[in-house]
Amino acid sequence: MPAKQDKNAQKAITPRSKDYSEWYQDVVEQAEMAEHSPVRGCMVIKPYGYAIWELMQKDLDARFKAKDVQNAYFPLFIPESFLKREAQHVEGFAPEVAVVTHAGGQKLDEPLVVRPTSETIMYDVFSRWIHSYRDLPLLINQWANIVRWEMRTRLFLRTTEFLWQEGHTVHQTEDEAESFTKQMLDVYRQFAEEVMAIPVIPGQKTDSERFAGAVRTYCIEAMMGDGKALQAGTSHMLGQNFAKAFGVKFLDADGKEKYGWQTSWGVSTRLIGGLIMAHGDDKGLVLPPKLAPHQVVIIPIGVTPEEVEASQSKAQEIADQLKEEGVRVKVDSRDLRPGPKFFEWEKKGVPVRIEIGPKDLANSSVMTVRRDTSTKQVLTEEGLIDAIKDILDQIQKNLYQKALAFREEHTVTVDDYKKFKKDVEGNFVLAHWCGSAECEAKVKEETKATIRCIPFGQAKTPGKCLYCSQKTDLVVIFAKAY
Amino acid sequence: MPAKQDKNAQKAITPRSKDYSEWYQDVVEQAEMAEHSPVRGCMVIKPYGYAIWELMQKDLDARFKAKDVQNAYFPLFIPESFLKREAQHVEGFAPEVAVVTHAGGQKLDEPLVVRPTSETIMYDVFSRWIHSYRDLPLLINQWANIVRWEMRTRLFLRTTEFLWQEGHTVHQTEDEAESFTKQMLDVYRQFAEEVMAIPVIPGQKTDSERFAGAVRTYCIEAMMGDGKALQAGTSHMLGQNFAKAFGVKFLDADGKEKYGWQTSWGVSTRLIGGLIMAHGDDKGLVLPPKLAPHQVVIIPIGVTPEEVEASQSKAQEIADQLKEEGVRVKVDSRDLRPGPKFFEWEKKGVPVRIEIGPKDLANSSVMTVRRDTSTKQVLTEEGLIDAIKDILDQIQKNLYQKALAFREEHTVTVDDYKKFKKDVEGNFVLAHWCGSAECEAKVKEETKATIRCIPFGQAKTPGKCLYCSQKTDLVVIFAKAY
Repeated sequence: MPAKQDKNAQKAITPRSKDYSEWYQDVVEQAEMAEHSPVRGCMVIKPYGYAIWELMQKDLDARFKAKDVQNAYFPLFIPESFLKREAQHVEGFAPEVAVVTHAGGQKLDEPLVVRPTSETIMYDVFSRWIHSYRDLPLLINQWANIVRWEMRTRLFLRTTEFLWQEGHTVHQTEDEAESFTKQMLDVYRQFAEEVMAIPVIPGQKTDSERFAGAVRTYCIEAMMGDGKALQAGTSHMLGQNFAKAFGVKFLDADGKEKYGWQTSWGVSTRLIGGLIMAHGDDKGLVLPPKLAPHQVVIIPIGVTPEEVEASQSKAQEIADQLKEEGVRVKVDSRDLRPGPKFFEWEKKGVPVRIEIGPKDLANSSVMTVRRDTSTKQVLTEEGLIDAIKDILDQIQKNLYQKALAFREEHTVTVDDYKKFKKDVEGNFVLAHWCGSAECEAKVKEETKATIRCIPFGQAKTPGKCLYCSQKTDLVVIFAKAY
Repeated sequence: MPAKQDKNAQKAITPRSKDYSEWYQDVVEQAEMAEHSPVRGCMVIKPYGYAIWELMQKDLDARFKAKDVQNAYFPLFIPESFLKREAQHVEGFAPEVAVVTHAGGQKLDEPLVVRPTSETIMYDVFSRWIHSYRDLPLLINQWANIVRWEMRTRLFLRTTEFLWQEGHTVHQTEDEAESFTKQMLDVYRQFAEEVMAIPVIPGQKTDSERFAGAVRTYCIEAMMGDGKALQAGTSHMLGQNFAKAFGVKFLDADGKEKYGWQTSWGVSTRLIGGLIMAHGDDKGLVLPPKLAPHQVVIIPIGVTPEEVEASQSKAQEIADQLKEEGVRVKVDSRDLRPGPKFFEWEKKGVPVRIEIGPKDLANSSVMTVRRDTSTKQVLTEEGLIDAIKDILDQIQKNLYQKALAFREEHTVTVDDYKKFKKDVEGNFVLAHWCGSAECEAKVKEETKATIRCIPFGQAKTPGKCLYCSQKTDLVVIFAKAY
């Protein structure tokens, strides 16, 4: 969509310090990632945004398969009665479902709900797939679209329809299910850190933030560029709640019929919103190389036709060499001036830009510019490919370190509620909590901050509940969240 | 789902000659590809069936990207009013849509249709993406789920919900759009022939079989094992019909505002049904190696624990070597007797089975069995990997040749209507047709055979219309179809 790009080239991105929310919207629009559709709350994921999702999918899918998880596909529609079988589940999801009442020109006998998540439809089917302990574990994943009727929507972060994967497993024992729930959370943690270059805090959700129908919900929480939290993945230990509701039973080795122990876990296109907010700057998107549709963009520069041809030919030569090494590279030979091209690829977060002009050709060198640090560096053609690969590695690491340092700078330990109210603006706050849902609700009501998670592996330190001052050794993370 | 497999191991598949439809149902069930879901007309695609779809997706996606087509994602829901903007389109699709009337606990102001195809929602968006001829061509593809309320459903072949890809493009000129429509049909033809090992006849649909809203519909038609036809892919030249309805306009190089010329094209999970029926035999599924989740299954055989261990260790060694060469291989070490394992993998259509037992170990050889020909062959360990790869190539080619020979045997040229009525049972019939929709409708009414296509590149031969005997030189293919 070059015309749009030309137009965007003129437009500035609102600085983050001025209006973070505007900045986010500008980046999504100007990096051509997504836009609002004519259908309320639904987005159009544009090619550049979708290419990032494809890279996420490819990486995650391989990680799931390495855990022996198999992909399958279940119906989009769920009979309304299925949703009602697990009491907490229906309570959580009923208010936000879209309902098909008519089809094929007729009123349906039973309305069909457009899946807001697939526990119910899948587990009804699982109950017929599983007979014996030999059928376990059953490890299934689905890549699908999901619909939850949201009142206030934001591109990628909260939309009526979104894309996700949902893993659903059945195990023989409680221990095995619990272990698998945590293993999948760790898959998400590794993906966030190694691929998205975002440090995350793994932990457990409080009861009030738990998935509707789960026994325990685990999550990874990431810090965005404004100090707010984004839940970047969840993994639920479902216990036997759904198994009992849907009859997911098996004959165990001891000859007894038992209910299966279940888990479910998911991440969605929301991660793209997290990626934008974790790394983006006032010039636009900043992509970690592992998720960049173009890791390198080469811009040939020249005034005379001969110069243009010479630099384009060199650009193509270097691009071919990079491609051979598995680098995703694009040569931008459009008939535009270099300035707007630099601007556009900066906005789109391309990790490395290479400029090749007559001077570079004469010196057998190229100019490279890193998106993360804006560092310019002249590199000789000799050893160029290895040097570029090395820079890409450095950018991947640097983005992670930068995000980690930012989070550390914006993490405070507070037990005084008055100070908390101030500190929770733009920070993660480690604070003592007595464990009561009331205190949690009061803090939320008065500050809009929620308990993001009870972090794993935390040494218990004696202290007093932030809200009620009762003695407790439980420390949790409070933050405002997306 | 091993328990199901054990159970299936006891079950026989209905022979094709006895009841082709039963045979199909048995193969889908016993090869564990898909099953009916609790939601009327919707299927569950099981892991083995989904793995085949993933292989199809991967191959097709690369072919689309090689044509510079970009993936994107558009909303599942379409405002009812959008569907109505193109008169023929709404007439074609309105009777089979599912409609969301309520969401978020409220009645919607305007009902939302669950996409039966995405022309309308996409082109409304395209109208805002395209400004100038420089924005063209716009080449977009979407992988998505689709809902069409079908009365009579059959797994993979016709289901209320199915998975597909839909390509949608906008071009500057009529010629370019026409050329692209045919190029994409040719992509489908190549995929069918090279990957699915199914010969297809590319051609044009008659007006009455044209896509609702298109100017011309091109298709590839494949012959199934019962001599019936399956439409295996379509590509539509949309002309400016939708462009006018949705305002897809651009400023051309000559300074004039013009409507874009559009195409759309798609294939779906229906192809899996075609794959089953093109190659399957009375023992079950027969997969071309390029679409086999496991191209080779190795079955270690032994009676004593030492024998078992030795053959398993050799099986793993060979599997590792094959994997290194990019062969998809599985070692079946389950604690089951070899017989049921052979039976199971045969049903699942695995191209090559390797058996390794004590005798083979002693002789430094293995036993190989081809699924397509049942040929057994002892191969020495030396040169084994190359030999297996060679066998896989042979199977891929043989399946295509077999299917081609079958089609040729079942293609007849007839102009006598009485003879036609008999011959059209289980054959493709090349017959003269005057071009009138009335004759076409009468033949359909009286014989249930339809004109599958007007094949490309056919020499015009003088003759008389099958039905009305009027003089004509147009020859078309009639057949009964899925």
